[in-house]
Amino acid sequence: MNLLEAFKQTKFQLSGHGNRNIKVLKDAFEQMDEQQESDMYGSGKIIEEFQDKLASYLGKESAVFFPSGTMAQQIALRIWCDRKGLKKVAYHPLSHLEIHEEDGLKKIHHIEPVLLADKNSVIELEDIVGMDEDVSCILLELPQREIGGQLPSYETLESISTYCREKGIKLHLDGARLYEITPYYKKTAAEISSLFDSVYVSFYKGIGGIAGAILAGEKDFIEESKSWKRRYGGDLISLYPYIVSADYYFDKRSQNMDEYYEGAKTLARLFNECEGISTLPLEPVSNMFHVHFNHSKEKMEQILIQLYEETGIGLTHYLNKTGEHSCYYEVSVGDRLAAIPIEELRNVFNLLNEEIKK
Amino acid sequence: MNLLEAFKQTKFQLSGHGNRNIKVLKDAFEQMDEQQESDMYGSGKIIEEFQDKLASYLGKESAVFFPSGTMAQQIALRIWCDRKGLKKVAYHPLSHLEIHEEDGLKKIHHIEPVLLADKNSVIELEDIVGMDEDVSCILLELPQREIGGQLPSYETLESISTYCREKGIKLHLDGARLYEITPYYKKTAAEISSLFDSVYVSFYKGIGGIAGAILAGEKDFIEESKSWKRRYGGDLISLYPYIVSADYYFDKRSQNMDEYYEGAKTLARLFNECEGISTLPLEPVSNMFHVHFNHSKEKMEQILIQLYEETGIGLTHYLNKTGEHSCYYEVSVGDRLAAIPIEELRNVFNLLNEEIKK
Repeated sequence: MNLLEAFKQTKFQLSGHGNRNIKVLKDAFEQMDEQQESDMYGSGKIIEEFQDKLASYLGKESAVFFPSGTMAQQIALRIWCDRKGLKKVAYHPLSHLEIHEEDGLKKIHHIEPVLLADKNSVIELEDIVGMDEDVSCILLELPQREIGGQLPSYETLESISTYCREKGIKLHLDGARLYEITPYYKKTAAEISSLFDSVYVSFYKGIGGIAGAILAGEKDFIEESKSWKRRYGGDLISLYPYIVSADYYFDKRSQNMDEYYEGAKTLARLFNECEGISTLPLEPVSNMFHVHFNHSKEKMEQILIQLYEETGIGLTHYLNKTGEHSCYYEVSVGDRLAAIPIEELRNVFNLLNEEIKK
Repeated sequence: MNLLEAFKQTKFQLSGHGNRNIKVLKDAFEQMDEQQESDMYGSGKIIEEFQDKLASYLGKESAVFFPSGTMAQQIALRIWCDRKGLKKVAYHPLSHLEIHEEDGLKKIHHIEPVLLADKNSVIELEDIVGMDEDVSCILLELPQREIGGQLPSYETLESISTYCREKGIKLHLDGARLYEITPYYKKTAAEISSLFDSVYVSFYKGIGGIAGAILAGEKDFIEESKSWKRRYGGDLISLYPYIVSADYYFDKRSQNMDEYYEGAKTLARLFNECEGISTLPLEPVSNMFHVHFNHSKEKMEQILIQLYEETGIGLTHYLNKTGEHSCYYEVSVGDRLAAIPIEELRNVFNLLNEEIKK
C-alpha cells in the first residue's frame, strides 16, 4: 500500500475541511431554489449580490467574480501596467505567478517581473526601497504560501503601503489566504485590504468552496477588468456553480478563522515536539504551515503508513523530497482537525515520535 | 408590461430547452454519487473520461475540457500560428472572435485576422482561394450563427479542406453548434470533424448544459493547449460542475438533433406564411434561424405582448431593431417546442398574422 491509499483509508485527517468530492457542491445547492435564475455573462442577481457582498467585506468600491485567481491577478497587473505605461511588476520569487502559471504573465502580457527578496524570506520594506528599477505594481502574497505561509509584521505592510503611494507604485494583494491571516494581525479583511489598491481572494482554500475568485478595487479598475475577463474567455454565460458554493462556504467558514489558526498553532507544537520534525514557521501565523522531516521520504512514508493503519488518523497523502534525508508537506487546518479527540491526537504524535526514534 | 415580462408569464415557449435556472444543475447532479471525487487541475476520472468520450465522438485523437469556447478557440489559433511562425488567421467578419470577445485574439496574441466573405454570406472556396495573403489557420463556424445559422454545402467543406491541406493552412472548426448540423449534412460529428485539424464544441447551446467547451485534435496539439489553458487561468482546480452537467445533457440531447432540426423547419414555414415575416435562412439547415419582421420594433412588441397574453405562448423575450420598420430575433429549437400542442401552435400563427395585417 502506498501513502495515498493508506491516507484514503483513515477515519480522521489533520488537514483540510474534507474530501473534494461532489458532496461539496450538493451541500451548497441543497437549499437553493430550483427556479432561481442563472447569472448571464456577468449580470443577474446571483453574481451581482455576491460581488457587492465581497466588495463590502473587503472594503472596496467594487468587485468582480472570476473563475480563477490566476486570471484575476494577471489582469490586475496588466491594468496597473497599462495605466503607468510600464510593463514591469515586482513580486516574490515563489509567487504563484512565477511558478504555477506557465509564465502566463510573460507570454500573454509581456510583463517583466522583478523578483523581490530571497526566496526563503518574506518581502520587507528594504527589498522594495532597494529596487534599482521602477515598476507599475508590487504584488504581496499574504501569507507567503511556498515558505510555509509566513507574514511580515503589520507595521511593515503599513510602511510598504505608504512608500508605494509616495512613489506612485500600485500595491496588489494576493489574498488567496486573506481570511486566514486576520486572526494573527487582529485586523479585518477590509483593514488589511485598505493598504492595497487591488485585492484578490479565493474561495477554495480556507473557505473550502469549489473554485473561483474575487478581484476588488475601485470601480473603474473593476470595469476595466471585466473587459479582460471577457478577452480571456472567463466571462462565462453561467458562473453560478462557483458563486453559489463560494457564498455558501464563505458564510459557513469565514467566521472560523480563529479556530483554524489556534488549531494550527496546537498542531505545530505537537510536530515540533517530535525528534527530527520541525514546522515552518515554527509558530504558524495563519491556519497553514509546512512540516519538515529530517528523515528520508522513504523512511517517513513507511512510518506514516504504519501510523495511519494503527490509529486511523491521516497526516498527509504526499511528501515532497527535498534531499537524501529530508522531505516536507503542507498543512492547512480546517474543519477536520476539531473532529479528532484530543487523546487520539496526542497518541498519534507519541507513536510518531517513538517510531522516528527507533 | 414589457416584452420580457410578458414572455416570462407565458406557459409555453417556442425556443430553447427551458429556463436557465438552478434546476439545470440540480437535475444533472441528482443521480451523482456524493463520494465521487472532484477532478484536480485537469486530472481525475470525471474530466479524463469525458475528454476521452468526446475525442471519440469527434473522431479525434485527444480532447481537453475548457471553461469556455472563447478560451479554447483563441488558444487553438495561437498554437497554429506559433507552429507556422505567422500570426495571421482568417475567419468570417461576424465570427465570435471578431465581435464578441473584446478583441482577445488581437490583444492577447497579437494575431491579425483576415476577414473572409461578405458578412451576409457564408465562406465559400472562392473566398479562400482569392485571399491575397498567407495565413496559419482558417476558422469556419458551422453554422454561421450571426446570419441565421447558414451553411455552405458539404462539397464546399470538402474542397476547402483539401485546398487548405495542399496549401499548408490549418483548418479549425468553430463547432459551437456542431451537433445541430449533423441532420442537414447527414454526417456524424466525427465525419464533419475529419475535414478539420482542430475542433471546438460547446455544451450550452443545443446540448443545454451550464457552460464549458471541448477542444479536440491530435495529441501534441491538445497537450500544448493545456499549457495555454493554465496560462489563461482556465485550468481550474475543479471543473466538474460544468463537466458533469455537460455529460448529462450530452447524453440526454445529442440524439435529439433530428427532432430539433425538423421542428425548426416546421416553425420557419409557419413564420414565412405570415405577412411581413420571413426567416433567415428561408429553410433552416439546423435547429436555428432568425425571424425578420418588416415592421417596427415598437409595433411588433405591442403585437407580441398581446399574443402572449391571449395564447400563453411566448415567441421571444427580445427584438433587435435593424431599421425604422424592421427588427429580428433568433430562434434555437430545443425541447420546448414539442411540448406545444400543434393546434395551439397553428392558432398562435393565425392570430399573429391577423394582428399584423390589421
